[in-house]
Amino acid sequence: MEQFIKPGERIDDLQTGGLRIIQNPKGFCFGIDAVLVSNFCEIRTGDSVVDLGTGTGVIPLLIAGKSGAAQITGFEIQEEVGDMARRSVQLNQLEDRVRIVTDSFLNAENYLKPGSVQVVVSNPPYVARGAGIHNQGDLKTGSRHEIHCTFNEVAETASTLLQNGGRFYLVHRPDRLADVIGACRLNRLEPKVIRFVQPKPDTAPNMFLLKCVKGGGPELRFMPPLIVYDTDNTYREEIYDIYRLECINVFDKR
Amino acid sequence: MEQFIKPGERIDDLQTGGLRIIQNPKGFCFGIDAVLVSNFCEIRTGDSVVDLGTGTGVIPLLIAGKSGAAQITGFEIQEEVGDMARRSVQLNQLEDRVRIVTDSFLNAENYLKPGSVQVVVSNPPYVARGAGIHNQGDLKTGSRHEIHCTFNEVAETASTLLQNGGRFYLVHRPDRLADVIGACRLNRLEPKVIRFVQPKPDTAPNMFLLKCVKGGGPELRFMPPLIVYDTDNTYREEIYDIYRLECINVFDKR
Repeated sequence: MEQFIKPGERIDDLQTGGLRIIQNPKGFCFGIDAVLVSNFCEIRTGDSVVDLGTGTGVIPLLIAGKSGAAQITGFEIQEEVGDMARRSVQLNQLEDRVRIVTDSFLNAENYLKPGSVQVVVSNPPYVARGAGIHNQGDLKTGSRHEIHCTFNEVAETASTLLQNGGRFYLVHRPDRLADVIGACRLNRLEPKVIRFVQPKPDTAPNMFLLKCVKGGGPELRFMPPLIVYDTDNTYREEIYDIYRLECINVFDKR
Repeated sequence: MEQFIKPGERIDDLQTGGLRIIQNPKGFCFGIDAVLVSNFCEIRTGDSVVDLGTGTGVIPLLIAGKSGAAQITGFEIQEEVGDMARRSVQLNQLEDRVRIVTDSFLNAENYLKPGSVQVVVSNPPYVARGAGIHNQGDLKTGSRHEIHCTFNEVAETASTLLQNGGRFYLVHRPDRLADVIGACRLNRLEPKVIRFVQPKPDTAPNMFLLKCVKGGGPELRFMPPLIVYDTDNTYREEIYDIYRLECINVFDKR
């Protein structure tokens, strides 16, 4: 295994069909958000899937593991992080189905034909450009703050790549809901299904999952909230189901 | 009491400071939606408040009962329903604070100066124009379907009447969330606080309460869901609190 990892990195088990992922505990490790949005995606056999801002590649790996997607392309602008993702693809021998492009997804048209993709997925930076303080040098920062891209650019790229009727799945923070819906509609991505994720049954949500359809008609369907912990602080059954077997130790890594 | 009511009508107790309302069980009786949005409104002493599409006037009556609003104007386009609302105002001796205008709110500028209002509230028709079937002759129809107005016209009127920084409170159905957010932002009404109403802890929401601020900056705060029934089918404490004393029999009237 050692040939795949660099100093400071480690290999984690994704608990899905034997998949493993390379992460650096000092860098950005994936969180429950990426797992939930991967689970939320409906993928059909033969689909071409694109992940905008793939980080360590967790979404492409999970989608490759759970679906018959023909081709999954993950864009990651940070060279060091994208390199880790590419090595994880090799580690799992998924090179024939998963491609990691270390470039800005704003250049996606150099790699994929517009209108050729069935599914775009994204776990984008949550904090709006200009909001909050951040440290430009930190690898985590670009994953959390809109430094390399704005949400509108995510939506614009998704719309460009998707065929008409294609699906865009994303996870985001509730305080950005109006921005997200606005940007999606501006780019002909109609919000069709939404699911809020709540830490507990009686708390406000701390994230939401959204499915948009390119060129879809207006009508947004709400799913029941996805509740993570029961009132007694144990994980809900559905969370165990999503993580398949036992709850793996990714919950508290962020 | 009889001088206030017409054949087929009855007087219901609003359980709030002795307030009563005239309703016609064969027409449209107010529902939990109107009670929840009235409760959701923050009213300051001296505020000028406008209710767009007031129906039997339940929102102006409840706001008059709970707050020190100086003036509450309710617009109702259906003459027969507006007449009932006006008689309820007389019945409660609130003529000095509550005015019912039986005209389309699209003519609101004939009655109120643009930019002069602190709060606009609305429990608008939920069903989009062109969606669903309806019976034009029914008094209930105009309260449920966008026959007399679209949501965009509600938002446009709210924005015209409100002063900068003024608040717009509304209740609507989740399937219209994208339309509502889109129309609000188009009219400089920034969504600031949202609360979903769920029948039970684990079910999808069936309505939402939204506070917008005219000219506000983007950032939407989520409140914990308002849950109506517990898993054992009893009302939640918060619902009893909202209805003050005992739960009155308006829950199942719609």
